Amino acid sequence: MFLWCEPPPGLCHGSPLLLLIPFTISGGLLSAPPTSKYFSVQCSPRVQYRITPPPLESGTLPTSLNGNTMLLITMDTASEVGNDSKLSVMYYGEKTEVLGKAVVHLTAVEISLDVDADRDGQVERNNPNKGSWMWGPNGHGAILLVNCDSEHTYGKRRDSECAEVTRVSDLKDMSPMVLRTSGPAKLPEGYKLTMHISQGDAESVRVFRTRSTAENLLYKSFVKDYPLVLGSEDLSKEVPYLGGNAEMNFYVEGLRFPDKDFEGLISISLSLLEPSSPGFPETPIFTDRVVFRVAPWIMTPNTLNPVEVFVCSTSDNYQFLKGMRRLVENSGYKLKVCHEYMNRGDRWMQDEIEFGYIDSPHQRFPVVLDSPRDGELQDFPYDVLLGPDFGYVTRTAYNVEVSSLDSFGNLEVSPPVIVNGKIYPLGRIIIGVAFPTATKGRNMTKVVQDFLWAQKVQEPIALFSDWLLVGHVDEFMTFVPAPDKKGFRLLLASPDAGYKLFRGLQNDGHGQAKMFDGLEEEEITVDEILSDDKLRAENNYVQSCIDWNRDVLKRELGLDDDDIIDLPILFHVMEENRAVAYYPDMVNMIVLGKNLGIPKPFGPKVDGRCALEAEMTSLMEGLGLCCTYIDDFASYHKLLGEVHCGSNVRREPFSFKWWNLEM
Amino acid sequence: MFLWCEPPPGLCHGSPLLLLIPFTISGGLLSAPPTSKYFSVQCSPRVQYRITPPPLESGTLPTSLNGNTMLLITMDTASEVGNDSKLSVMYYGEKTEVLGKAVVHLTAVEISLDVDADRDGQVERNNPNKGSWMWGPNGHGAILLVNCDSEHTYGKRRDSECAEVTRVSDLKDMSPMVLRTSGPAKLPEGYKLTMHISQGDAESVRVFRTRSTAENLLYKSFVKDYPLVLGSEDLSKEVPYLGGNAEMNFYVEGLRFPDKDFEGLISISLSLLEPSSPGFPETPIFTDRVVFRVAPWIMTPNTLNPVEVFVCSTSDNYQFLKGMRRLVENSGYKLKVCHEYMNRGDRWMQDEIEFGYIDSPHQRFPVVLDSPRDGELQDFPYDVLLGPDFGYVTRTAYNVEVSSLDSFGNLEVSPPVIVNGKIYPLGRIIIGVAFPTATKGRNMTKVVQDFLWAQKVQEPIALFSDWLLVGHVDEFMTFVPAPDKKGFRLLLASPDAGYKLFRGLQNDGHGQAKMFDGLEEEEITVDEILSDDKLRAENNYVQSCIDWNRDVLKRELGLDDDDIIDLPILFHVMEENRAVAYYPDMVNMIVLGKNLGIPKPFGPKVDGRCALEAEMTSLMEGLGLCCTYIDDFASYHKLLGEVHCGSNVRREPFSFKWWNLEM
Repeated sequence: MFLWCEPPPGLCHGSPLLLLIPFTISGGLLSAPPTSKYFSVQCSPRVQYRITPPPLESGTLPTSLNGNTMLLITMDTASEVGNDSKLSVMYYGEKTEVLGKAVVHLTAVEISLDVDADRDGQVERNNPNKGSWMWGPNGHGAILLVNCDSEHTYGKRRDSECAEVTRVSDLKDMSPMVLRTSGPAKLPEGYKLTMHISQGDAESVRVFRTRSTAENLLYKSFVKDYPLVLGSEDLSKEVPYLGGNAEMNFYVEGLRFPDKDFEGLISISLSLLEPSSPGFPETPIFTDRVVFRVAPWIMTPNTLNPVEVFVCSTSDNYQFLKGMRRLVENSGYKLKVCHEYMNRGDRWMQDEIEFGYIDSPHQRFPVVLDSPRDGELQDFPYDVLLGPDFGYVTRTAYNVEVSSLDSFGNLEVSPPVIVNGKIYPLGRIIIGVAFPTATKGRNMTKVVQDFLWAQKVQEPIALFSDWLLVGHVDEFMTFVPAPDKKGFRLLLASPDAGYKLFRGLQNDGHGQAKMFDGLEEEEITVDEILSDDKLRAENNYVQSCIDWNRDVLKRELGLDDDDIIDLPILFHVMEENRAVAYYPDMVNMIVLGKNLGIPKPFGPKVDGRCALEAEMTSLMEGLGLCCTYIDDFASYHKLLGEVHCGSNVRREPFSFKWWNLEM
Repeated sequence: MFLWCEPPPGLCHGSPLLLLIPFTISGGLLSAPPTSKYFSVQCSPRVQYRITPPPLESGTLPTSLNGNTMLLITMDTASEVGNDSKLSVMYYGEKTEVLGKAVVHLTAVEISLDVDADRDGQVERNNPNKGSWMWGPNGHGAILLVNCDSEHTYGKRRDSECAEVTRVSDLKDMSPMVLRTSGPAKLPEGYKLTMHISQGDAESVRVFRTRSTAENLLYKSFVKDYPLVLGSEDLSKEVPYLGGNAEMNFYVEGLRFPDKDFEGLISISLSLLEPSSPGFPETPIFTDRVVFRVAPWIMTPNTLNPVEVFVCSTSDNYQFLKGMRRLVENSGYKLKVCHEYMNRGDRWMQDEIEFGYIDSPHQRFPVVLDSPRDGELQDFPYDVLLGPDFGYVTRTAYNVEVSSLDSFGNLEVSPPVIVNGKIYPLGRIIIGVAFPTATKGRNMTKVVQDFLWAQKVQEPIALFSDWLLVGHVDEFMTFVPAPDKKGFRLLLASPDAGYKLFRGLQNDGHGQAKMFDGLEEEEITVDEILSDDKLRAENNYVQSCIDWNRDVLKRELGLDDDDIIDLPILFHVMEENRAVAYYPDMVNMIVLGKNLGIPKPFGPKVDGRCALEAEMTSLMEGLGLCCTYIDDFASYHKLLGEVHCGSNVRREPFSFKWWNLEM
């Protein structure tokens, strides 16, 4: 409720519900005659007043007057016409003789800038917490999406790149905000309403409003019907006062994700400006403020249900595609093939993109993070994926060499975990970097790391993947769902488990069983592998690298040894002491619910059955998981990748809402 | 405690106190003969072991062996010589016949990287919380100072600009860190200790160490005695293992203050590297980590005791200097005069610098923040103030026009306050910016604002000072100590209070009393002032600007009207509707304990006494404060500044420690 009086008082301040105009009785607006000793007050029914300091002679009239006496005036409902209320003060002398009378005419208007601060999808009235943001189920504060999808499929740009509303459908990607006013038909001469943002927020937010007449919605000229109110060019703009009981709808559009230099919080203010003396600027006498947090980009772990599976078609991967199609369709999902005109021979679907999503109480859609890797697949995410309700975000590494560690096979996320009592209901992001003790090494580029850390809700973990020639965490680890314990298992590549299996085969008399049977690859026997001292030394080194990561994962995800399964996988070490898988790297799998698509390892056969597949199947069967082995040998493995590197899965979002996190 | 065995096991992990080497009994280091069914374990006295999963037939020997059996081995004290402990496993067949025996030789070494994580000024042993940072009296985590003073007085640079220890005295500005090791005389062949930091922290920290032999401290070649270990050029470096029970001292130097892109947290790690197979890199098998937070720059409010008062001497300010010297010396403090060869006529000592300090459990010193204003006084802070135990920090506004709002008369700090239950024991920083509703205006430059916000411990408040021609918050507000209520009062310039006073004079028959008596200024009577409608209109506008700030201050500092005193000050409005004080602006005072140095207002005289001084003295007397009026009319007021603008006070630091803040 805002109250004003004519002539304007010298001093005003207030809160959105109740606005006060205190002024001294002697001096200023309600000046008392110099010899006044007592006073009395009368006012209209909707006006309340309080005398401060409270008069000693409570109940008696008139009241003693001194230099400190203040009158605090409020009104409990808005005025229907201007100056419909008044307050008068009668002044008395020493002998209570009347010395004079002063009158102010009062008009009250209610102003509230409203948002969905309780996060139920509705813009409530004047939420007392709308001006601040608090995490958690008992938290508060509105949510803003980066408008990073495109309402258009052709000639498209991200909607956030256009300083206008591109289609009516674009409004649902923006946060609703309502200006509710109640008062007379017009504000008094010279008063006006102004909406404003700070310079710092201007690059992160835009505000549109709807024109007041409803029929405009039928027009096609959107720019006309949803004019831009605030943006980087307009930090402050007058907004119309509609009169009576009115609501004006605003639409707030987020422009950038949280990042190293942007926590994600944005304020929007609405002020009532009062005319000062003629020729001087107006000054704000009442300001209402709302706060939004920009929704973070959220990744989806293997334990969430798939929606779509993406692979590339190339001139040489027919066999692989056939295997993938069978697996994906049998699992009940749709296989999306990126054809060669788009992928230009780049088959590493995992490496160019990472699927995630953004979520708010009013809207949610998938968002693809485009890697700065920028291989031949680089146009795919923007040209194919970006579209209505499918967002796009990228980070560009300027003046920095991008390395293989910038591919998103090196960016994964764990299932939800609890670590020393701290709950991560959305899991934790996992990336690979150089060994911390290395004096030099490859790293994921800083702009991408900064982006990932700034999202906050899936606090990242850095593993050490630079020991691998390709250098991706998905070469030695993955997560699969499990019916027991923490709801998942961490699978780790393990040369020790590999040697144990091969030694077991030898001990059982299968030393002459051959690997790589039926491939255009030189076959090798179990005995030959076990007698290769150089290979053993290489795998000792690899095991020590994986062990370091195992320790980090146990500590940072709160895992026990029981939560980890070691898979029998050998590596060999190439130039610069960097490792690649010796045979198809079974941990580099695709996880589709209970179905696993695993690189066919072509291991030694015992009784006609691959011993590596047998071991893998046996380990997974105990978790109720079904293994399908996919031949990726020629078209992926020989090119230093496997099934996971060559595919990507868009998954359902978490049912857990990120704003309910306790931070 | 770290444990190793020869030959090295495949899998190690641990915590600093107790390191485990788990390995499967079947396969790997302690390989069991293929037909083993049972096993038993023997070990040296200092070795403990645990079988997992625990054997069912508890107490009976030998124990059943299966594929999952793991042996977890620990040692409770460090080894005195290499391989001084051992553990052996005996394997039995179906009928408990002995099939073989495996032995590992064990060496244990204790490694702890220690800091003052409990903040008592001493580096304790292996604090369990040393790897994280928590605010508050029950918090933990070590503290680092930006080494921004200079051990040298001549030819000086900030110590942080030199990648070496400049003097032994410089070590006390660094945080002590101790590497404590206990074990045999030498590490086994190929093992080594490495200290390392991340790329991201490298620009914020340097680590030196002391050479191990104590007599080196007598040398003068400091570079030799305190070699650089880590810095931007060296992210990782081997450090010597001393053998036996040893302590090696390190010194950690902070290089940059918290800022928009730097939260202030830094990690330093120490890893034990294990040789892998010959020809392969070593891999870390144990890492200890400590965390520091860089101490923020802290401002000191008027309620803290002064230490030194700074003013400029110019060709025309003899009268002012005389008044200041008497005030400062009578108050018991030392007046420091910056002479003309250094100030080059720039008298605005308040505007070029802001005094603050940095604090840690081991060291504390004042730090001057140098404004990007860079007037003729610009060399003073670096050339005169910077020195031993007197730090210097600045922020440079690149490619941005610096405005008058960047002067530090526009940067103040409140006394400690409690706002809606939230305690600010170090007060809140106050700056002035443009009106939020203004479509354009002057602002404090972004790099300085970012710096102030990033210090976190005195969360800033933005007031609106752009309505003033000079544009500084000290033109309309200050704080004075008070014996009651919140321990201080906020003083605000108030045209309304001014008009009330002048009207009172008129009513009492003093309408012909003259302002500016005895000055080379045109005199003006009370009646003339009161009959000037233009002046009244200007002051209405000024009052509305101050009222806005009054509301912000009440809300952000949790003040009541009783905590605020309105001072009778009139303004007039110049070009672009910007205001300057009409007569010397009494709120622009210097506060030295209970003594106030106030611009002599040259108000109308009643019975030979200045009515403005009388009112001011009466308002301050009630708080036990003593007013001294200093004539700054010609040399400051006419140049649009007053006493506060022309002086600066270095004050004692808070007794409250910033790390005890609850954040």
